[in-house]
Amino acid sequence: MGDDATGAAGAFSKIVGEHDLLTGDAIGPDYAHDEALVGEPVVPRYVARPQTAEQVAELLVAASAAGIPVTARGSGTGLSGAARPHADGLLVSFEKMASIIEIDTANQVAVVQPGVTLADLDTATAEHGLVYQVFPGELSASLGGNVATNAGGMRAVKYGVTRQNVLGVQAALATGELIRAGGKITKISSGYDLTQLIIGSEGTLGLVTEVTLRLYPRLAHSATLLVPFADLEAITRAVPAVLRTGVDPNILEYIDSFTLAAIAQAQGLSLGIPDDIEKTAQAYLVIGLENRDHDRLDGDVVLLGELAESLGALDLYVLEGHSAHALIEARERAFWMGKAAGADDVIDTVVPRAQMHEFLNRARELATEANAGVIGCGHAGDGNVHLAVFCPDDDTRHRLLHQIFATAMELGGAIAGEHGLGRVKAGHYEELEDPAKIALMRRIKAALDPAGILNPGALLTDPNDN
Amino acid sequence: MGDDATGAAGAFSKIVGEHDLLTGDAIGPDYAHDEALVGEPVVPRYVARPQTAEQVAELLVAASAAGIPVTARGSGTGLSGAARPHADGLLVSFEKMASIIEIDTANQVAVVQPGVTLADLDTATAEHGLVYQVFPGELSASLGGNVATNAGGMRAVKYGVTRQNVLGVQAALATGELIRAGGKITKISSGYDLTQLIIGSEGTLGLVTEVTLRLYPRLAHSATLLVPFADLEAITRAVPAVLRTGVDPNILEYIDSFTLAAIAQAQGLSLGIPDDIEKTAQAYLVIGLENRDHDRLDGDVVLLGELAESLGALDLYVLEGHSAHALIEARERAFWMGKAAGADDVIDTVVPRAQMHEFLNRARELATEANAGVIGCGHAGDGNVHLAVFCPDDDTRHRLLHQIFATAMELGGAIAGEHGLGRVKAGHYEELEDPAKIALMRRIKAALDPAGILNPGALLTDPNDN
Repeated sequence: MGDDATGAAGAFSKIVGEHDLLTGDAIGPDYAHDEALVGEPVVPRYVARPQTAEQVAELLVAASAAGIPVTARGSGTGLSGAARPHADGLLVSFEKMASIIEIDTANQVAVVQPGVTLADLDTATAEHGLVYQVFPGELSASLGGNVATNAGGMRAVKYGVTRQNVLGVQAALATGELIRAGGKITKISSGYDLTQLIIGSEGTLGLVTEVTLRLYPRLAHSATLLVPFADLEAITRAVPAVLRTGVDPNILEYIDSFTLAAIAQAQGLSLGIPDDIEKTAQAYLVIGLENRDHDRLDGDVVLLGELAESLGALDLYVLEGHSAHALIEARERAFWMGKAAGADDVIDTVVPRAQMHEFLNRARELATEANAGVIGCGHAGDGNVHLAVFCPDDDTRHRLLHQIFATAMELGGAIAGEHGLGRVKAGHYEELEDPAKIALMRRIKAALDPAGILNPGALLTDPNDN
Repeated sequence: MGDDATGAAGAFSKIVGEHDLLTGDAIGPDYAHDEALVGEPVVPRYVARPQTAEQVAELLVAASAAGIPVTARGSGTGLSGAARPHADGLLVSFEKMASIIEIDTANQVAVVQPGVTLADLDTATAEHGLVYQVFPGELSASLGGNVATNAGGMRAVKYGVTRQNVLGVQAALATGELIRAGGKITKISSGYDLTQLIIGSEGTLGLVTEVTLRLYPRLAHSATLLVPFADLEAITRAVPAVLRTGVDPNILEYIDSFTLAAIAQAQGLSLGIPDDIEKTAQAYLVIGLENRDHDRLDGDVVLLGELAESLGALDLYVLEGHSAHALIEARERAFWMGKAAGADDVIDTVVPRAQMHEFLNRARELATEANAGVIGCGHAGDGNVHLAVFCPDDDTRHRLLHQIFATAMELGGAIAGEHGLGRVKAGHYEELEDPAKIALMRRIKAALDPAGILNPGALLTDPNDN
């Protein structure tokens, strides 16, 4: 360790306390990675565990002064390498800033520290009959990480993604100031929206030290419909029809037959699908409904059942209690199934929902041409397609993904719908995005982080990386 | 006109055509102002009426080169002077970019040019059984102007403001590039969200040349409840209770008794309120409900009626057909009533909704101390308080507004909930906002508009203004 490094360690240690500045062997292997399937773990030089927002701001001042790259880490459940640290860098772990500060029932908001997990928040809001509606599928994820990636999940079709459910943040800027933007208000038209700028910026514009979240009443009644179709095209046609009814499902997913079979087998789930349907159905639509009133829920189930029949559904299963819960939970674990099956990458491309079928056809053709495979499921209501990609050769896979991403963008979509670009997809993004936008984003980055210490190489590539 | 100006006129004229570059007497008085009550009209040196996005971008290049300030204008219905031009400046009027490009029913989006009015959009979407849910109260407003101010309105309590309903933009940057951000997708996590950065930036970061809007099914059945309460405090308590039911009203307004009486008189509206109630009631809650099903709507009316009674409502009127429509329309005209009554300013402060009563009490005390008056109505569900301020002396009014805005901010709110800061409130904002945020916003502004030509003096004050 050189003099500079010793100096930085001393400065960091003075800020968070000796016990909460880890170096060398004290840094456990978890800090070296998130859940991205691509890329190797990187052990950072320093791990700091701040306890207050002021400490976070002071860490950034010290890191700026020493030119040390800073990576933020919540629970490390990200899928794009945005929490993968630099070997010579500082990892700021929010594990000791994990308090729910307030559940304000009159304003229907929660105020939390960034290290709070979705699971803990869900338990706390449930006590008040409220719910934070963003469920990105991994309840051990932290709110800070959710803000950084603009996390989505199944309920986005009704309630939107993180961006629509975060009302305010406190953030530490790279320049050392602690600012507050937004608050317990759903409407604001006073200055540039710094809350929205920071959401989805993957730790490259500031570190979030507190989050104010919009809550909704937790509705008492819910049902899950599983609807087999002969092919995915029928599902793409069914989705707008379902949304046009005004029934407002809170889940609208598709699962291809391979993935459903894998899910059912892995989880020991019996969904009661007869053999002949199972053989004919290539894709399944999953519709989640909720209501404050049980009779209305039943009415909605009947209405959508009739609609599904008219749209060519092969059958319809109303799942209740355990099997409904198990299916949704299994669907949320689809990433882990892909990982267990040996997928070489997972992607979460988004396209306009009416273009989902065309996109998937072209993605499959591209995969076939590359001797690769893609299977998956996705948020049909949002056109957000999750594909497990089986293609072990790095160069071939890069070319294939480039083609798949380009196809999504041609169709009016984007590379990532909810996982973020991180360090894994930043290169693809720069290859495909309008250079004028990339240049503008670099100017914005420089305006917020003049020393360039915040998560270099994530979201935008780092020219110093190679 | 000097040589530079002649040169600029020639350049602008070459871009939009001679017929669509106005100078001197050809510039009508409408171009000199918006609807802000404060400040004098300013006739700009040039008015350009571009027909294409490319022309807008070229105008910005020419204006940048000549150092000419540029102000964008939609319908000129703004209330904060953000569309008030500079005497030596170029006004870009979007009146000739007013086409609805597409209503895409499968993706439930509309793609429009910025000059399209809300009225025209509403007519077009109605034909498809869809609706754009942002109704800021003035249907002659343009979508471009709505994007610039992040316009809100009554239905925000259910559907959010412009920010939540704009999925993508095409924008001309001050540096001359035309960029696209977002699109027909509700979910995106790929790069900084330039759509969100531009929304609400009041023409200071880029000029929007196309907007992609989220549409919803137009529900068939609606009802309006008018609920008198003895005082506003009771309404502040009732609002969270209404929202906790899960009934999800699309309108949740309060109107003070002065304003309701003025509205009723001006519009010749008979609301059927008995004299004794009219004498006792100090404030009214207006609840809008909608449903795809008539029986469900009736059920919701009954449920909220019972709830209102338990919360101390003095009575409850279910308005139907004409009177419901007339009340909502009259409420939307409250600004014009205030103007006609001789108000010296109108403000649209926002606070957390549970703090609305405290805010209004303190605002009234401050007004009394200043020998001034404030009356109003507001979006109770959003804590967004509209006050007509009667205080003719400029200095006294500035001090009073400073105190009222400071009070709102202390309570966790903001100066403007939906009108924007424009040129009228930019000074207040800079007096009251965290200097670190102002400095950051200036850095962001410089990153997007290095020559500083876009709407100087709006949102942020212009150091060159005095």
